[in-house]
Amino acid sequence: MARQNIYDNETFFSEYRKLREREVNANNLFELPTLFANLPDLEGKRILDLGCGSGERCKDYIKRGAAKVTGIDISEKMLAAAEKENSDPKITYIKMPMEDIGSLKEEFDVVISSLALHYVEDFRGVTESVYRLLSEGGIFLFSQEHPLATCFSGTYDRWTRDENGRKIYANIADYCVERRNDSTWFVEGVQRYHRMFSTIVNTLVNSGFKILKMDEPYPTEELVQKYPEYYDLYHKPDFLFVKVQK
Amino acid sequence: MARQNIYDNETFFSEYRKLREREVNANNLFELPTLFANLPDLEGKRILDLGCGSGERCKDYIKRGAAKVTGIDISEKMLAAAEKENSDPKITYIKMPMEDIGSLKEEFDVVISSLALHYVEDFRGVTESVYRLLSEGGIFLFSQEHPLATCFSGTYDRWTRDENGRKIYANIADYCVERRNDSTWFVEGVQRYHRMFSTIVNTLVNSGFKILKMDEPYPTEELVQKYPEYYDLYHKPDFLFVKVQK
Repeated sequence: MARQNIYDNETFFSEYRKLREREVNANNLFELPTLFANLPDLEGKRILDLGCGSGERCKDYIKRGAAKVTGIDISEKMLAAAEKENSDPKITYIKMPMEDIGSLKEEFDVVISSLALHYVEDFRGVTESVYRLLSEGGIFLFSQEHPLATCFSGTYDRWTRDENGRKIYANIADYCVERRNDSTWFVEGVQRYHRMFSTIVNTLVNSGFKILKMDEPYPTEELVQKYPEYYDLYHKPDFLFVKVQK
Repeated sequence: MARQNIYDNETFFSEYRKLREREVNANNLFELPTLFANLPDLEGKRILDLGCGSGERCKDYIKRGAAKVTGIDISEKMLAAAEKENSDPKITYIKMPMEDIGSLKEEFDVVISSLALHYVEDFRGVTESVYRLLSEGGIFLFSQEHPLATCFSGTYDRWTRDENGRKIYANIADYCVERRNDSTWFVEGVQRYHRMFSTIVNTLVNSGFKILKMDEPYPTEELVQKYPEYYDLYHKPDFLFVKVQK
């Protein structure tokens, strides 16, 4: 199956880094706070970070008391940034696609993945491998693009706007058709896999996991007053979080 | 909290009955087959049907070997039809809103509800009562209107159509705003409660349930060739099924 490595595209890499460096972005406002709010106690735990990128989160897990963190990523550029900016004696960075984690020989107590699983075609294969790698009672916490954010049509805009340009609703096409959705994000041909809610839930349950919690973060009223452009997230949230247990 | 009894509205009742009597309808094509496919073995089991309507399903559960079935409904007209058309020595029909099942004194092995829970404001109260009424290991299986079907805006049409009138996408508004959505279905002011996926899942988990399976049924290609009007369900499914265990 396809293993996408868009983060090693020169343009994508530099544009993505710029986006994440902006102080106000959806990751800082919604994604990371929800991720950290859902973390179990990391004290003394062995952590695996799937799609660790430039390693900021791996460093955070160490600060929260993790005994060791293994960060894997498919992108050489991202890992070079991680080694340079977020190295630590307790962190090991490995260049590896998520689809290959079955080859890891260690056991982990917590597996975390931030906004990476929508790039994976073989979701079932990854969840089964995560289950095998986890210790009994271990936690798998991940975020991904929300299923309403991956089911637009290439032919139409994702939004319908009023005469003032305000987004009045999201245009949802073929929610029930699971597929690869190619789109342009910094560069052409970024591949995301659209999966229905029920597929995500059933795949995890069939892999042996117990569902603990789901989150679809959206802005507070206070935040929308400060950044009115984020009202759109009420129509169609950007992120889905799932927390499950072995 | 509000307890809606729209089924006792004269017009609603007769129009709804006509709809369900049509051989080809979404209930017969998708809802009921998915419900029956997800049923556990009913042999010798004690069943509670929340929102039993005119009792067809209660009769089916008896045919599948259930020891006894209790059907509750808020609508007198529906229960009168049930007594007339689907009475059985093993079935007891009780006029009771779903919100009041906490007052039942019996234990049940399986609780089933077909397309009724979206009428309930206090979803959490009902799931907690169901948990208490179930025997250990008991199953709660329900269908409801799909969360994408309950988050349209009253101001806009639910669909955007092309020049030939074909529905090209569903118009999703305020998915993240949980609310009562009043709409016209046979009569004005039919009240449905919109809840996000995560709310449904988290409410069940917090009530003590283990998630076993979710379903969002949509038509097969064969069926769409026969009834092209059902292609719309690919954009926005009508029904959500959840199967959980105590």
